[in-house]
Amino acid sequence: MSSELSTKLGYQFVNPDWLKIALTHRSSGNDNNERLEFLGDSIVNFVIAEALFYQFPHAQEGDLSRWRATLINRETLGDLGRHFELGRYLFLGQGELKSGGNQRTSILSCAMEAIIGAIYLDGGFSAARDSILRWYEPLLSSLTKASSHKDSKTQLQEYLQSQRMALPLYQVESIEGEAHQQFFTVSCTVLGIAERALGQGTSRRRGEQDAAEKMLGILKK
Amino acid sequence: MSSELSTKLGYQFVNPDWLKIALTHRSSGNDNNERLEFLGDSIVNFVIAEALFYQFPHAQEGDLSRWRATLINRETLGDLGRHFELGRYLFLGQGELKSGGNQRTSILSCAMEAIIGAIYLDGGFSAARDSILRWYEPLLSSLTKASSHKDSKTQLQEYLQSQRMALPLYQVESIEGEAHQQFFTVSCTVLGIAERALGQGTSRRRGEQDAAEKMLGILKK
Repeated sequence: MSSELSTKLGYQFVNPDWLKIALTHRSSGNDNNERLEFLGDSIVNFVIAEALFYQFPHAQEGDLSRWRATLINRETLGDLGRHFELGRYLFLGQGELKSGGNQRTSILSCAMEAIIGAIYLDGGFSAARDSILRWYEPLLSSLTKASSHKDSKTQLQEYLQSQRMALPLYQVESIEGEAHQQFFTVSCTVLGIAERALGQGTSRRRGEQDAAEKMLGILKK
Repeated sequence: MSSELSTKLGYQFVNPDWLKIALTHRSSGNDNNERLEFLGDSIVNFVIAEALFYQFPHAQEGDLSRWRATLINRETLGDLGRHFELGRYLFLGQGELKSGGNQRTSILSCAMEAIIGAIYLDGGFSAARDSILRWYEPLLSSLTKASSHKDSKTQLQEYLQSQRMALPLYQVESIEGEAHQQFFTVSCTVLGIAERALGQGTSRRRGEQDAAEKMLGILKK
């Protein structure tokens, strides 16, 4: 049982007792997972904070905190627990077992944190970090994609805020063509930046997005 | 300036720019300490959690969480910042400076967290952990003393709870001597423990404390 779970987790315990304690809910016995959960919670918090810090070198503290909260909240950790089918391996008291405790999000998320604490005690910090980053890889990647799919105006605004610079000004410089087939040229200027970005598009909004993208290029070069 | 502060902190930066950023409040410029604060917060959280975990091997998760919250809250970190006279080294905008920002608890505590993040980036995890544990040594020691100065009945109760055992029963077995000079013998029994502890004292309460201390001895041997 426990070696089956170890394989899913991608970590083989030197001392499998740690895993057993991590899977033991307080309803089941004295040597339960509450202390390991306390330790594991602080480890996943740190590892995810560090990962976000490096993954988003221009993100502001507010965004980093928000993303971290999403990644390590009860629901996400509970989903991780379900992914590993922890419910099959938990040690629960009779009452909890009867009331479906082995599928309860709070119990699964605590067990996930306890497993992290257990890996740390068994294999040290890098073992715990490697495991967490492996499990979170899909979530961290999707965060990067979501972040890079932001439209250019939003990206520019966030970049300028992160640099404590003034917000950009957009101005329509010219409109060509007939009413149903217009072509917009829009400028984007930023206070303190001499160069002006010119964008073009078939609507004012598309022109602004194009100008924002070019201004980002100017700022980051 | 910065090497003076490094000496106080007990950590010499390979790259002193990290320290400078850690000391830069957002009111002062673009390269401010907010991202370092985000990182440092998660490091001190983990390091203190781990220290408490090892320092109190029998403490319950609830106590550990409570102690950690006390050790890493804004006030404690702000006091640490005052201890290092951070106010003298901070880079603040004019507005914050005029309104006494360099003594404000929130600014000092954020700067302390940012310094922890800076040490981590400059010297790695063990450098950050060593610094934190050195700074917190007096507070962690006083926690041990406070915890060990708890009266024996409280200690016994907490120990039994941590082991998910029944609470102790105290019973006066005999009272000897005259009214103004009585001598109490009190028994302490715990469900599931065959051995009974007998305590003695010049009051019922003292007899109970003595019995509790002896029961702790029985349980821990």
